[in-house]
Amino acid sequence: MDSGLRHTTRFRVRFNETDPLGIVWHGHYITYFEDGREAFGETFGISYRHIRENGFLAPVVKCTCEYKSPLRHGDWATVETIFINHPAAKMIFLYSIVNSKNQVVATGETIQVFTDLGGDLILTNPPFFSDWKTQQGLL
Amino acid sequence: MDSGLRHTTRFRVRFNETDPLGIVWHGHYITYFEDGREAFGETFGISYRHIRENGFLAPVVKCTCEYKSPLRHGDWATVETIFINHPAAKMIFLYSIVNSKNQVVATGETIQVFTDLGGDLILTNPPFFSDWKTQQGLL
Amino acid sequence: MDSGLRHTTRFRVRFNETDPLGIVWHGHYITYFEDGREAFGETFGISYRHIRENGFLAPVVKCTCEYKSPLRHGDWATVETIFINHPAAKMIFLYSIVNSKNQVVATGETIQVFTDLGGDLILTNPPFFSDWKTQQGLL
Amino acid sequence: MDSGLRHTTRFRVRFNETDPLGIVWHGHYITYFEDGREAFGETFGISYRHIRENGFLAPVVKCTCEYKSPLRHGDWATVETIFINHPAAKMIFLYSIVNSKNQVVATGETIQVFTDLGGDLILTNPPFFSDWKTQQGLL
Repeated sequence: MDSGLRHTTRFRVRFNETDPLGIVWHGHYITYFEDGREAFGETFGISYRHIRENGFLAPVVKCTCEYKSPLRHGDWATVETIFINHPAAKMIFLYSIVNSKNQVVATGETIQVFTDLGGDLILTNPPFFSDWKTQQGLL
Repeated sequence: MDSGLRHTTRFRVRFNETDPLGIVWHGHYITYFEDGREAFGETFGISYRHIRENGFLAPVVKCTCEYKSPLRHGDWATVETIFINHPAAKMIFLYSIVNSKNQVVATGETIQVFTDLGGDLILTNPPFFSDWKTQQGLL
Repeated sequence: MDSGLRHTTRFRVRFNETDPLGIVWHGHYITYFEDGREAFGETFGISYRHIRENGFLAPVVKCTCEYKSPLRHGDWATVETIFINHPAAKMIFLYSIVNSKNQVVATGETIQVFTDLGGDLILTNPPFFSDWKTQQGLL
Repeated sequence: MDSGLRHTTRFRVRFNETDPLGIVWHGHYITYFEDGREAFGETFGISYRHIRENGFLAPVVKCTCEYKSPLRHGDWATVETIFINHPAAKMIFLYSIVNSKNQVVATGETIQVFTDLGGDLILTNPPFFSDWKTQQGLL
């Protein structure tokens, strides 16, 4: 369920992100999603750094990307990152990458779980995460 | 439907593929999948190069990766690439990455479509692809 | 000889640019240099795109980087790019990467030559490049 | 001074290492050098892992690359890594990348220093490194 929490960040395609077809290599969109997620996290206090300071890690356990239209070297684009509110001990984000003509060029999703600093999976919501949800009006 | 066509290729995790947690950053698995797909393609005559020589491109339109367990710097692993036979003008591959203890650490899928060399989508199977399927006993 | 032409561009260190030591992997500075060079090129009309529109390519034939101090995930830094005026048919840039405490963390140099669009080396200054130098007061 | 210690490792150019010109982007050679250095290190017992197990880190403080000729997607090449014996507390390596036609396509150098695990510079040769040199007949 869309939490209503969203953040948009702008980026520019680097030369070395494009392939011999002159377009962004498909794997680099995973980087753009992470850029979006980290920018979201810094705005809302839920970045890798915040999670770690609370004694947890949040590894990505699934990611998906769908490609609609290419991006090229020098293109400006935005990634919109949307937090999906879910009762399980997970963080789910949706992404939408939009080019400078306002066309959606790619969409995606990541799912993260929580582990302790030793990498062991945490099956219930960490207190800091429940607190964060409460602060955001999501609980 | 599993075509029965599969290929396994071995790789080693590079130092610069690992992140501050000491594990492979999740986006790099897309590279491992491509390594597997290209090794499959060279074995079965359906690599990027073969496709291009026939006057087509095969951009990835969707990719998915699920992460089960981490890989670390210096680890040896294999990627098994399986061609899924599908009637539409698409190439679908499944991937399974297995560590040196024979544990599946990640699985994934890519879907490619065909375009002409100008990037326009081709909605019917290119003749070279139908021929290839026939040769492989898939048509 | 320092041309007096310089440009400063700001960037932020991505999570996937850092290594298991928690610092930026040394090879990624080559990307930061290119970011600086392209930002310089767009400001002064001498980017990859401008060069190509004039019928030339400008491959890097040498690069050097010296590392003074690490950068970490989330750090903001700037790259200053300085054009070195040289009579030969070359483009020479110096780079200085400075962290948010105003410390120089890395310096570097790249040398580019000119080729035609087929990749053949051009030994004399392309007319567009001499014109550009004249416009910039360097000839 | 060339120590006589050298190692050659073979690699294949990945699709996502090539740029819109169809050639390997110049920054990726730093990865090939590291591949060579790590393969050397595993053969001679002086890899990142060995150094760390002895309580030290060996960050790169300078790297240089000179480009002679391009590599393309699918090309096989080798990187030869040569250890340069030097009295200071440094590790110096030279690299030579050779294509399948036995042409040198790039050369380079890296210089590493030693730090403790906290990142503080070590100005004298760590005992493990002197021992290693003795074992290799370099002291």
